[in-house]
Amino acid sequence: MSHPTESAPAAARAAALAARLRAESPLVVNITNYVAMNFAANVLLAAGASPVMAHAPEEIGEMAAIAGTLSINFGTLDAAWVKAMVQAGLAAQRAGKPVVFDPVGAGATTYRTGTAHAFLETFPVAVLRANSSEILALSDAPAAAATKGVDATDPVDAAIPAAAALARKHRCAVAVSGAVDAVTDGTRLLRVAGGSPLMPRITATGCSLTALTGACCALAPGDPLLAAATAMAIFKVAAETAAPAARGPGSMAVAFLDALHSLDPAGVATSGRIREEALP
Amino acid sequence: MSHPTESAPAAARAAALAARLRAESPLVVNITNYVAMNFAANVLLAAGASPVMAHAPEEIGEMAAIAGTLSINFGTLDAAWVKAMVQAGLAAQRAGKPVVFDPVGAGATTYRTGTAHAFLETFPVAVLRANSSEILALSDAPAAAATKGVDATDPVDAAIPAAAALARKHRCAVAVSGAVDAVTDGTRLLRVAGGSPLMPRITATGCSLTALTGACCALAPGDPLLAAATAMAIFKVAAETAAPAARGPGSMAVAFLDALHSLDPAGVATSGRIREEALP
Amino acid sequence: MSHPTESAPAAARAAALAARLRAESPLVVNITNYVAMNFAANVLLAAGASPVMAHAPEEIGEMAAIAGTLSINFGTLDAAWVKAMVQAGLAAQRAGKPVVFDPVGAGATTYRTGTAHAFLETFPVAVLRANSSEILALSDAPAAAATKGVDATDPVDAAIPAAAALARKHRCAVAVSGAVDAVTDGTRLLRVAGGSPLMPRITATGCSLTALTGACCALAPGDPLLAAATAMAIFKVAAETAAPAARGPGSMAVAFLDALHSLDPAGVATSGRIREEALP
Repeated sequence: MSHPTESAPAAARAAALAARLRAESPLVVNITNYVAMNFAANVLLAAGASPVMAHAPEEIGEMAAIAGTLSINFGTLDAAWVKAMVQAGLAAQRAGKPVVFDPVGAGATTYRTGTAHAFLETFPVAVLRANSSEILALSDAPAAAATKGVDATDPVDAAIPAAAALARKHRCAVAVSGAVDAVTDGTRLLRVAGGSPLMPRITATGCSLTALTGACCALAPGDPLLAAATAMAIFKVAAETAAPAARGPGSMAVAFLDALHSLDPAGVATSGRIREEALP
Repeated sequence: MSHPTESAPAAARAAALAARLRAESPLVVNITNYVAMNFAANVLLAAGASPVMAHAPEEIGEMAAIAGTLSINFGTLDAAWVKAMVQAGLAAQRAGKPVVFDPVGAGATTYRTGTAHAFLETFPVAVLRANSSEILALSDAPAAAATKGVDATDPVDAAIPAAAALARKHRCAVAVSGAVDAVTDGTRLLRVAGGSPLMPRITATGCSLTALTGACCALAPGDPLLAAATAMAIFKVAAETAAPAARGPGSMAVAFLDALHSLDPAGVATSGRIREEALP
Repeated sequence: MSHPTESAPAAARAAALAARLRAESPLVVNITNYVAMNFAANVLLAAGASPVMAHAPEEIGEMAAIAGTLSINFGTLDAAWVKAMVQAGLAAQRAGKPVVFDPVGAGATTYRTGTAHAFLETFPVAVLRANSSEILALSDAPAAAATKGVDATDPVDAAIPAAAALARKHRCAVAVSGAVDAVTDGTRLLRVAGGSPLMPRITATGCSLTALTGACCALAPGDPLLAAATAMAIFKVAAETAAPAARGPGSMAVAFLDALHSLDPAGVATSGRIREEALP
């Protein structure tokens, strides 16, 4: 049983981290998918970060060196991109930069599941960010997973034990997005509430959350649990700000970028937004 | 001479098909171009379908097996993508899934025209969806075609005989979009009216219509003529709903996604929307 | 010291050129980056031009032959794209079509800086369009440059001497975008004022300006200085039209496309918009 308690210290620290985004404008190097490239860049810019999209082996080492963080999302993967992502992950490791990894559609095909496992065993990841079905597919008991293409079909709660096990195995934070997000480092569990049901009707919102998680990791490289919770809370706040004026997913995406741009970091710490729970 | 008549049965069946989209949320696997990736995914999500973008040979067979349909659009083609598209088309054939094919810019270069012919001769296509200039370029009498880059310069009516001949030759439906859309299986001809002149001022609307045609084919794999007409009618209805609030192509694209999201399927069957005509 | 004077002839000629865009709808063939593909196509369509995105060696020669101009932007470069861009540049040279080149992130990595130099030495460029940091990085005294990823960190004025030197060396116009744009052919210097501080918070606005510069070059192939100033002035006017209704970068991007679509070319020639200055 989990016993939810307000996580005042975590919430306050998340709000402080959110406030630093625009002031410090961390450089996030992204290797992401074709669908998400534009929206993820716009999300980072609106949130105050500085995005670069790059993948060539000729430059990924230099990019990792100047980056605050590296965000890898293999949504439209093929052999050439997989190779570039591994090179990038290793370059980030050499440069001592945190890596955020989003295994889009893990579970949908053996290629995706296998590639995700290979990445996790090849370079260190600070945050593994995924939906519940992807986390279940990557766990040691993936039979329960039911991925439909790249969309989750499992509730967040069902994936928390698997997330905690993955976190302990790969010494990272595992962030599971959904109606109430969860992030765990295998010892602690933070839940992040709020948001809008329109968000999953906009493509690349998860991918963009991964990119923003990278931006937060650049500012708090020693605390990926907090960085992931902060990015999730920023998304929830911006979605809530945007929702009242949205008439559907088109205007929601526009209003969401506007809300990110004028986000009050204090919203990240409002009552009930971030709670600490005991791991089940 | 064509003698237009209201196609009450077709219109009613199209409205019923449109109503199933959100309820059944078919999985559409897309191999599409870089320009259209994001917008096509958002169109599918807004319409209630579930999009995946994938192209790697390592997974395209599995993707085709779990997909309801495969949508191929070669808008930013090169040798690697062409190879992946052929593999995908053959995988869909093995899996018994319908394929929708959009030969963007056929007629603009010999590479595009030749690749389109090669696809049509290599794997079965349920719906060939294109603009009038592209259809004329693929016909046996392409001299009349005048493609300007990837935009049509010919009226829809001029392409109907060529569309019908292509439909008979390749045993598929051929959907020609324009001011009044046309779709034919070589025997029957449906016309779809409505829409907005702002739509061609938004990039990737044709590509997104191809993706939505795929979603409709997944629900009616035995009736590509109806599936194509339904997707076309949905686009026309959403464009009409969006147009009054649009101040230009930017706000039109946003309002179009909103309108898709809250579309009343009954609009697909309003008087004059879908008409059956005799083939000329 | 520069002595600013109203450039009535240049401004009037720019307004005349802007008015021709929608009437003549030049075909712009773009080899651009994954982030910018969709937005650049929408910018060209909204401004009245006709975009094609293509890069395959099998067709780039034909595309260059039918194009009014070629726009090259290497933002998400790798070896395959670099090769395609060189082929495209040479094909444009053979076809006698002007090339606009945007060296995104030059200075951020040696790969980008080296590739940009290689392009400038391999095929003729009509307009080199970049931000101040990229221009400084490409100059013979790059020590002053401070590129942060792909965003400029130097003021436009600091880059003007380097821009003029590059223009003389490569016999092209060099356009430097920023708060007050500058474009020089090494002899003359035009400044373009206006715009909105929200524009740099939208990704791919610079890339899209490059694409529009291509469209203007297609209409004035003999006057790249004027073509670049016209594209810059169109962007400034549209940004000013869009800004009052914008609530952030999301709605700004939408309103900007709307404003391009209904742009009054006379705005390009309003007092103070385009000034001629002496080169420092």
